[in-house]
Amino acid sequence: MNKQQLTETVFAKKSVLCVGLDSELSKIPAHIREGRSAEDAIVAFNEAIIDATWKYTIAYKPNLAFYEAMGLAGMSALVRTVQYIRSKKEPMFIIADAKRADIGNTSRLYASAFFGDGKTAPDFDAVTVAPYMGKDSVSPFLSFEGKWVVLLALTSNPGADDFQLTSADGVQLFERVLAKSKEWGSDENMMYVVGATRAEMLKKVRMIVPDNFLLIPGVGAQGGDLNEVLKNGWNKSGGLLINASRSIIFASSGMDFAEAAAAEAGRMQSEMAQFINQL
Amino acid sequence: MNKQQLTETVFAKKSVLCVGLDSELSKIPAHIREGRSAEDAIVAFNEAIIDATWKYTIAYKPNLAFYEAMGLAGMSALVRTVQYIRSKKEPMFIIADAKRADIGNTSRLYASAFFGDGKTAPDFDAVTVAPYMGKDSVSPFLSFEGKWVVLLALTSNPGADDFQLTSADGVQLFERVLAKSKEWGSDENMMYVVGATRAEMLKKVRMIVPDNFLLIPGVGAQGGDLNEVLKNGWNKSGGLLINASRSIIFASSGMDFAEAAAAEAGRMQSEMAQFINQL
Repeated sequence: MNKQQLTETVFAKKSVLCVGLDSELSKIPAHIREGRSAEDAIVAFNEAIIDATWKYTIAYKPNLAFYEAMGLAGMSALVRTVQYIRSKKEPMFIIADAKRADIGNTSRLYASAFFGDGKTAPDFDAVTVAPYMGKDSVSPFLSFEGKWVVLLALTSNPGADDFQLTSADGVQLFERVLAKSKEWGSDENMMYVVGATRAEMLKKVRMIVPDNFLLIPGVGAQGGDLNEVLKNGWNKSGGLLINASRSIIFASSGMDFAEAAAAEAGRMQSEMAQFINQL
Repeated sequence: MNKQQLTETVFAKKSVLCVGLDSELSKIPAHIREGRSAEDAIVAFNEAIIDATWKYTIAYKPNLAFYEAMGLAGMSALVRTVQYIRSKKEPMFIIADAKRADIGNTSRLYASAFFGDGKTAPDFDAVTVAPYMGKDSVSPFLSFEGKWVVLLALTSNPGADDFQLTSADGVQLFERVLAKSKEWGSDENMMYVVGATRAEMLKKVRMIVPDNFLLIPGVGAQGGDLNEVLKNGWNKSGGLLINASRSIIFASSGMDFAEAAAAEAGRMQSEMAQFINQL
């Protein structure tokens, strides 16, 4: 999906919601797990969540850790989940939250693992990438037509303080990552992770990357303020993908988990629609 | 494998060689691929390389990208490769070169994917971890008894210059990573990646982490000097795992690939033995 298509989806759905499919088996409602293999339970859960949240969301973001932790069954569940989304034949942005990066030659292989044919390898639109190894670890992901890198800039966890905020010559590391990486790609193939737990930082970020989409984790369970993020991060394309994972997919652990997920996704989307309607 | 056992292996084998199992299918000799599925070809190749290099090496390091790029077949080949090494019932250190890290809760799941039971999930001794997200992204890997984090400090690729060498208050980012992360673990569960293409930097690294093992990529195909690394990096435990991948495993693409791999591994190990004998 290219930037124009993504922007059209934002305004058509009046949403910048991304649902994180962090589908940890032990947290899936018991009635879904009952009588199903681990793989089938994950797929059944994801399909129900996807159906329930589809009209409110413009993106899904499975975090790879939850699938890798289940071995081959998990990886198979991931492929099937992406296939299910694609089978709906409607625009939907899908992000592999994998936080990969390696030396150039090796990053190329990671890219091929995520930007696959959809059969043996899932056909994601984007992969999250870690910046520590620099340009040649990121560039291979950018050579895939119509695909995106979502580069970690400022993350939403406490450990972000350890290095990302370190200041050299008045420039913090996350600002350096933004400024430097702008040379590697464009706002047509680069997005950035900026944690919502630091909404005030969004203004700083927007000064460096005014036109790029930002993937914002940390709204919901991690406590970031949705309206603050919209106010500080919005640009003329929308420019935001605001992610919520646990607060939506595990909104209820009962028989009503899908309805509860829909309600929470709908609540967030209506806040987004209200903001968009006022533009 | 704990530090004492690893040190004993270093001196028993007179080696600090780590063989990188970057087993890209298209580079595997044709006669191995013929009549075999992709998965079986990778496994057959790895087993032959492992048999041929066993007596010269103290560690194997599959890079996950090469396996993930093959989808489920690749991941199954990885599990079988680790099982094969363990089946020999001799001490061998196995590193998952995965360069993972995520927010705490999620890193815990990555850790469980690599520190598994050996059946559905491989039982590696160590995982390479990226430092950008800070303490809570690294710590979950450190809570597994007898397991190791190999944290990226100074990598061997050109992009290392982009951020790792950035200086804040006279301290380069990789030095900050070393100094800060020392607080998170100990030399019993933390190693560091330091590229051999920057052997002169090893002295700087050793001033900060005198007692930790260092994983040194970039000797061999990437051009680092083995003797320089030994001189500048050695400590009383050995303290080094010097990795070579392509220069060993693809030393020949013919019928003699295993013999050629053994010859190259043997050449490196004899240089190491010479150094150790002079201590």
